Amino acid sequence: MKNIITIGREYGSGGRTIGKKVAELLGYDYYDRELIDEAAKESGLSAEFIEKTEQSLTGSFLYNLAMGNSYSYGMLSPTGSNVLPLTMQVFLAQQQAVLKFAEKPCVIVGRCADYILRDRDDVLKIFVYSTEEKRIERAVKEYGLDTKKAREQITRSDKGRARHYSTFTDWDWADRSHYDLMLNSGVIGIDAAAEFIATIAKK
Amino acid sequence: MKNIITIGREYGSGGRTIGKKVAELLGYDYYDRELIDEAAKESGLSAEFIEKTEQSLTGSFLYNLAMGNSYSYGMLSPTGSNVLPLTMQVFLAQQQAVLKFAEKPCVIVGRCADYILRDRDDVLKIFVYSTEEKRIERAVKEYGLDTKKAREQITRSDKGRARHYSTFTDWDWADRSHYDLMLNSGVIGIDAAAEFIATIAKK
Repeated sequence: MKNIITIGREYGSGGRTIGKKVAELLGYDYYDRELIDEAAKESGLSAEFIEKTEQSLTGSFLYNLAMGNSYSYGMLSPTGSNVLPLTMQVFLAQQQAVLKFAEKPCVIVGRCADYILRDRDDVLKIFVYSTEEKRIERAVKEYGLDTKKAREQITRSDKGRARHYSTFTDWDWADRSHYDLMLNSGVIGIDAAAEFIATIAKK
Repeated sequence: MKNIITIGREYGSGGRTIGKKVAELLGYDYYDRELIDEAAKESGLSAEFIEKTEQSLTGSFLYNLAMGNSYSYGMLSPTGSNVLPLTMQVFLAQQQAVLKFAEKPCVIVGRCADYILRDRDDVLKIFVYSTEEKRIERAVKEYGLDTKKAREQITRSDKGRARHYSTFTDWDWADRSHYDLMLNSGVIGIDAAAEFIATIAKK
């Protein structure tokens, strides 16, 4: 029996839709973007700021942190001590939210939840991907983008997610060794994927 | 409806067992090591030779081929023309066998079958993997190896399969973009995996 289902996903692969269906089938709570709001609320950081920080993440973040250049990314606390880069403050706030949500059975899409919950053995770790063609089709239909914009967003989003992952974890995004199941949603289908995940979770 | 199921797999992950069960469930033919025998028979190359060639594959094969140094890997035909490296002769013979088997519904484990059949749209492409711990456990139980030998065989076999793949195809072994479904057999379970694959194939 798996109490937590984490879902990593490529942009436009339908990972969120699969996550919602799995949550319905199992009667679990469902979280994705809400995590950011929750994290923001608990930590005092604004949702707008969190979103902006994520988008501006660069590969040089850890390098700068290692070199002690965190000031360029961080801010001083009111007392001048406890200096943590803002990006790390955001991640820690999200981590707290994930840990709190995971006290009850739930489905969590994205947010490095698989990494954050890596020491628990009641977590089923899923990754959803698809072909570029199918992802474009989905982005056009679901998000109303034109084909060119959809293609750009896919590239940008995949790059951002991989970078977010490698910045805050010592894992590579989409590395199979960290997943129990990786599905091409364009072939398997949203409903079949959700049903199989729910079946495995109940075992 | 998928007429062909190809299964790539890590050593000790149970990919062959899953393949056999899928074939039973669907009433399809099943092929793995037999392909080598068949390829050997059709091409006139001996089964022993094919096995030896595979084991001696090195990353420099394509480099040598590109540089025109194929003589060091090949042999002259009786007439002195039609010089093809022996390793490539072996691959071409295996390819012929895969193409022939794929004329009827079947499950094919390994042998770059997914790559060889890449232009068909009735092929379901599976990859089976597992944790090192579970793979060792399986190798000890199924193949009678001791733990140390099993660990060595896992490393050697994964390296060999990745090299075989990159030598004869322009794909990377285990790259998700070439698979429809990737399963951690240690978590999903052999029977559940086989049943899901058969269900998807029948859709």
